[in-house]
Amino acid sequence: MTEGTGFTTMAGAKATGEIPEIGVGMLGYAFMGKAHTNAFKKIPYMMYPPPAIPRLVSICGRNEEAVAEAARRYGYLTYHTDWRDMIADERVQLFDNGGPNHLHAAPAIAAAQAGKHVFCEKPLARTAEEAKTMWEAAKAAGVKHMVAFNYRFVPAIRLAYELIRSGALGRIFHFRAVYLQEWLMAHQGTPMIWRLDKKTAGSGAIGDLGAHIIDLAHFLIGDIAGVSAFTRTFIEERDFADGSGAGQVTVDDAFVSTVAFKNGAIGTLEATRFAAGRKNHEVIEINGEKGSLRFNLERINELDVFWVGEDPRETQGFHNALISEPFHPFWSNWWPQGHMIGWEHTFVHELTHFLDCIVNDKAVTPYGADFEDGYRAAVVCDALLESADTRRVVDIAY
Amino acid sequence: MTEGTGFTTMAGAKATGEIPEIGVGMLGYAFMGKAHTNAFKKIPYMMYPPPAIPRLVSICGRNEEAVAEAARRYGYLTYHTDWRDMIADERVQLFDNGGPNHLHAAPAIAAAQAGKHVFCEKPLARTAEEAKTMWEAAKAAGVKHMVAFNYRFVPAIRLAYELIRSGALGRIFHFRAVYLQEWLMAHQGTPMIWRLDKKTAGSGAIGDLGAHIIDLAHFLIGDIAGVSAFTRTFIEERDFADGSGAGQVTVDDAFVSTVAFKNGAIGTLEATRFAAGRKNHEVIEINGEKGSLRFNLERINELDVFWVGEDPRETQGFHNALISEPFHPFWSNWWPQGHMIGWEHTFVHELTHFLDCIVNDKAVTPYGADFEDGYRAAVVCDALLESADTRRVVDIAY
Amino acid sequence: MTEGTGFTTMAGAKATGEIPEIGVGMLGYAFMGKAHTNAFKKIPYMMYPPPAIPRLVSICGRNEEAVAEAARRYGYLTYHTDWRDMIADERVQLFDNGGPNHLHAAPAIAAAQAGKHVFCEKPLARTAEEAKTMWEAAKAAGVKHMVAFNYRFVPAIRLAYELIRSGALGRIFHFRAVYLQEWLMAHQGTPMIWRLDKKTAGSGAIGDLGAHIIDLAHFLIGDIAGVSAFTRTFIEERDFADGSGAGQVTVDDAFVSTVAFKNGAIGTLEATRFAAGRKNHEVIEINGEKGSLRFNLERINELDVFWVGEDPRETQGFHNALISEPFHPFWSNWWPQGHMIGWEHTFVHELTHFLDCIVNDKAVTPYGADFEDGYRAAVVCDALLESADTRRVVDIAY
Amino acid sequence: MTEGTGFTTMAGAKATGEIPEIGVGMLGYAFMGKAHTNAFKKIPYMMYPPPAIPRLVSICGRNEEAVAEAARRYGYLTYHTDWRDMIADERVQLFDNGGPNHLHAAPAIAAAQAGKHVFCEKPLARTAEEAKTMWEAAKAAGVKHMVAFNYRFVPAIRLAYELIRSGALGRIFHFRAVYLQEWLMAHQGTPMIWRLDKKTAGSGAIGDLGAHIIDLAHFLIGDIAGVSAFTRTFIEERDFADGSGAGQVTVDDAFVSTVAFKNGAIGTLEATRFAAGRKNHEVIEINGEKGSLRFNLERINELDVFWVGEDPRETQGFHNALISEPFHPFWSNWWPQGHMIGWEHTFVHELTHFLDCIVNDKAVTPYGADFEDGYRAAVVCDALLESADTRRVVDIAY
Repeated sequence: MTEGTGFTTMAGAKATGEIPEIGVGMLGYAFMGKAHTNAFKKIPYMMYPPPAIPRLVSICGRNEEAVAEAARRYGYLTYHTDWRDMIADERVQLFDNGGPNHLHAAPAIAAAQAGKHVFCEKPLARTAEEAKTMWEAAKAAGVKHMVAFNYRFVPAIRLAYELIRSGALGRIFHFRAVYLQEWLMAHQGTPMIWRLDKKTAGSGAIGDLGAHIIDLAHFLIGDIAGVSAFTRTFIEERDFADGSGAGQVTVDDAFVSTVAFKNGAIGTLEATRFAAGRKNHEVIEINGEKGSLRFNLERINELDVFWVGEDPRETQGFHNALISEPFHPFWSNWWPQGHMIGWEHTFVHELTHFLDCIVNDKAVTPYGADFEDGYRAAVVCDALLESADTRRVVDIAY
Repeated sequence: MTEGTGFTTMAGAKATGEIPEIGVGMLGYAFMGKAHTNAFKKIPYMMYPPPAIPRLVSICGRNEEAVAEAARRYGYLTYHTDWRDMIADERVQLFDNGGPNHLHAAPAIAAAQAGKHVFCEKPLARTAEEAKTMWEAAKAAGVKHMVAFNYRFVPAIRLAYELIRSGALGRIFHFRAVYLQEWLMAHQGTPMIWRLDKKTAGSGAIGDLGAHIIDLAHFLIGDIAGVSAFTRTFIEERDFADGSGAGQVTVDDAFVSTVAFKNGAIGTLEATRFAAGRKNHEVIEINGEKGSLRFNLERINELDVFWVGEDPRETQGFHNALISEPFHPFWSNWWPQGHMIGWEHTFVHELTHFLDCIVNDKAVTPYGADFEDGYRAAVVCDALLESADTRRVVDIAY
Repeated sequence: MTEGTGFTTMAGAKATGEIPEIGVGMLGYAFMGKAHTNAFKKIPYMMYPPPAIPRLVSICGRNEEAVAEAARRYGYLTYHTDWRDMIADERVQLFDNGGPNHLHAAPAIAAAQAGKHVFCEKPLARTAEEAKTMWEAAKAAGVKHMVAFNYRFVPAIRLAYELIRSGALGRIFHFRAVYLQEWLMAHQGTPMIWRLDKKTAGSGAIGDLGAHIIDLAHFLIGDIAGVSAFTRTFIEERDFADGSGAGQVTVDDAFVSTVAFKNGAIGTLEATRFAAGRKNHEVIEINGEKGSLRFNLERINELDVFWVGEDPRETQGFHNALISEPFHPFWSNWWPQGHMIGWEHTFVHELTHFLDCIVNDKAVTPYGADFEDGYRAAVVCDALLESADTRRVVDIAY
Repeated sequence: MTEGTGFTTMAGAKATGEIPEIGVGMLGYAFMGKAHTNAFKKIPYMMYPPPAIPRLVSICGRNEEAVAEAARRYGYLTYHTDWRDMIADERVQLFDNGGPNHLHAAPAIAAAQAGKHVFCEKPLARTAEEAKTMWEAAKAAGVKHMVAFNYRFVPAIRLAYELIRSGALGRIFHFRAVYLQEWLMAHQGTPMIWRLDKKTAGSGAIGDLGAHIIDLAHFLIGDIAGVSAFTRTFIEERDFADGSGAGQVTVDDAFVSTVAFKNGAIGTLEATRFAAGRKNHEVIEINGEKGSLRFNLERINELDVFWVGEDPRETQGFHNALISEPFHPFWSNWWPQGHMIGWEHTFVHELTHFLDCIVNDKAVTPYGADFEDGYRAAVVCDALLESADTRRVVDIAY
């Protein structure tokens, strides 16, 4: 393994002098609105000195009472119930789209066309075709664009990336990833929601969970050559929460797939919302010529690593490395070793990176995922659905 | 979960009276010859009272010096260098085939036709077609036949079987299994051996490791409807150990596959000999409507279990159960709880079962795998190879 | 185990109406200053609606340049280099003492006498005697006082507390706790610092790490009857960081102790800064009549639990419970299950509790530790030192 | 870490030529009789070529029917109900004492005086004084003597010993060991048995479980300077199994202690039979200047190891090493890596060593524990009881 894998310090040279402000417009005030806003609020003092200071200009949602409360809660200057009004606001320089999947494309494209930098939740769109319109619009507008594949910004994942890129693992043979949750199982009583409707969500476990591990496959291993998949919808009808009857579940509850990479590696990808006892169990293992890596999102501060030939052979074994040293990715900004960070911190790292790209005109890639990466993930999502339908290997043409 | 899942006590009613002897002929004196012989020698006093006492009649191998030494070491009455001589010996009632894959069919068939009960290492044969000839011969001869899928006889696996059969997990959604080893990686220096030649081995990781997890899929979940697979041979040429040049590796080093079960469950199966740091890493996870199970062969005495709704919800989580209580499968014969057993014990359980079937004319199935099960696993192995070739889902017709 | 153990929702009834502000003065801008300030900044929007909104009035430290920078970074209205000036500021209602141990007593007492509520880092003081002066001063002043034993506010620890208090574990037999770190080992190159000088620190591993597990012993199990201890200083002299020579280490690098509780339980307490590979390894195990609990700070979101008699016996074992459900302590304020939180969150919970106590005139105990608890921990710390000296059991008289 | 730590191959130079026989007399046919006999039966073919072939001459127990059955089961030539008859048999060369504690001294001394080599279960005796008489008798008789501290013969423990002895860990700072079981808890319904009576057992958890970890402390770290302890008897009266009323428990159910080693290291020792969920949980951690080791008997094939400075620092962490490679202690005799062994194998290793010592006139120490080691452990056991009584540190004078 090479010394000095050279992790990028997020917040660079601006320690002295004026730190610019970036006006933020946030679409969505629920789960993702909360997670992104928390990140914007922590960046100025935790990623210190930050590349820019996010100015919380406005937040947008359909329910006026709720969005007004959210504005008060988080300290946004104003709120909107129509995203067009938010985009019309000149103070907004960064448009953050945390809305449901069917509301990704139109606002993102409009924002880009209005010259806003755009940050968008994953999956970028419901289909690859839709994702491509977004990517092309953002590219044409010349704005910075990024899709919120936040697991790239887990310190252990960034470390894995640096190790693989440095050649420390040698040739890669295997990539296996599962993303297991349980919240659609019958005993959980989940009603019919937008995530279960193909029109609003595009797909189910594939787009929601699968997109994350597809992106990590791209990030860590590289281009995918082909996939084969089975999908299942275990519960086909669910009651609406408001008692207005039942709706048809039109997306996959789960998928399993094989994957062949262009570099010769093979692997499996699987995601489900029907794995009893698995809360947010994203587990990845990579086997290479010189070592292996294993990561579990539920133990977000750990990376299991095996090195071929480096250790005294009597005590070789997987190292359970606590990724929390000052020299670990992103950790110089946090706490002493062993004082753990969590899931929300990935957004702090990710949005700091985006601010850095905006202010210092840096490329979002390779550390972050831009709309092209969002499109690429969508191509694979579409291929999984097509393979499940045709029962054939689907070649990937990005 | 129901009380009293009713684990079979292996050694039953023969505590008093005469215990019959069964003459054993053992083909092979290396890894499997040692493992099976050890089991035969432990059965009389550890599975006490045993259903029968194995009498070690003869051992067979091609190298006379080595096989003579093995006979002395283990206490076999005699030895042979030609298996036909062993089968001709009337004292041999149980023929145990621990030879390489291409020597499974002919001796097993001849033994069956000579009226010997036949125990055969896995995979039963190089192809499903070959396996079928063995199954049909054994059936026609009216002898007992069993294939050494010994992991069915791990206490934790038997417990998993009983739990699933009792309905404790409800409907099954997912089965995922990997069997990872590392011994073909370049740094291990493994030469060209019979296991890497399609003529002698039939297939590579598929038949050697994959057959185990395919059999467990059959045992625990049931019939497979279809599979899709990729295979890889990462190192295509290897030197012979004797310095006589290099040979072509004509089998798979690794495979990944998706699997659809007839009961609606989906899953993944994967095996490789290129997973750095993984020694004998057979890991299975099953997710059902009422719970999940997870097993790792490297922690052979443990079963991780999650129950939906049974536990106080504040402390729900996977139970790390030590499978070593007197009421656990097979454990009444062993030690106090927490005094662990290992891999070799699976053969003690398995061969005790076979002796019980012979002496008491019991069915080898469902607890054990008979030649039909060996054939069924071979059908899936063939399908994996076919799918890797055709890039399509292959439907399973047993 | 009883249903509905009734975890307190932190932020209660103030959702509507005016939320009061509490002016904060923060002594210290390094590790603890950062951790506490981060908590103050997150409380208003994450513990929403908060019992009070912390107003960051002033921050204090000896280095003017550094403290001015900290004020800018965190948004304090002003800064001081003398804590007396901070206490003189009427806008400061809550004095937060994150200074070194020898600067706990005087500022805390002065603040209390000036009518400020006082929050103080642990250990409360260098000796029990000093701690008592602080407790008495705070009591006499009628202000709220709290010592930062933040691990009481780990969700898993709070859950452990509720379980034990509810009787779910029955009679307690054993409590064993270790707190292992490695940062004083020779290869780490740590210079002579205030923590290694008895005059400034009071003690070493005992006061720094031991105080945490002593407080958890008090919180979870109850009064201690007696202790016996050995201490060691493995490196007796260290160089000053500024090159001005070497200083004598006058505190313990490590201690081991036995502990007898008044309720009959016995246990061990140990802390060290010489445990290679242990970063922040605080591990606690409790064995009771009806079950066992195990917690590891490095896996802060997990609690291992064993229940006697509750589970199906075939699959009994320690439950690895992910403490991240909406019904788990403090979690209603955070993220969906499995989206982990970290070490910094303990301060958010803890300071929210303190604000709640101030605004709503609630008792700091039993959930939080007040100065009496700080004193009680100091009594045990002193007893450990005395026992190491006298080689006898020291009875605890709080 | 040094290369070539030089693990002793158990079965050495006797591959050719005549292998001598050693006549064995076994006192006890229950738990230990079974475990030792199993070892004797496996040695000839698994530790091949063995230093000697154990000849099972006789087995002894008080219940004639049971001991006769045991003789049949295991293949002993004869049986006795009085150990004096066994010792009088000239065919017995190795007397193996697996009886209860109060029957260790007299038979062992008589056997030694009759010129038999003596193997004795632990604890060697009920008190140090009694143990000394045994040691002196064996020494005077010039026979080989060994006490069954079988955990020295766990491959991972032997590896730990070699690593420490080679200096790989440098100076040792800490040793902590627990041995936790649960079988005396009320819900287990254990009746009054000889192990709970001071007259027959000597002590409780101290002699039964504590002796094991004391011996490992001696084996791995060295001489103990002093100890301090608390003991508890949680259930003071128990019913006899035969319904004849209740008896007083006169031994400790649990103890906790601190330990100071002569080399400056400090640690804790604890054992209990009241740890809910802990089956056979012997866990040891050692922290040294250059690394740390951790072992858990319930995962008998694993050793967790941390090396200071050896690994690439980004991925440092505890290695979970599977101790099952051909080059690991004792493993050349067993199976391919990852094919696990268990608890019973420790006796195979241990008794092979004793046979080797007998036949080749080798010293039992340092790999094995002789009666002096049994005495030394008893000295510490006595000191724990004395400290619990006097509430003082007791200095150890072996």
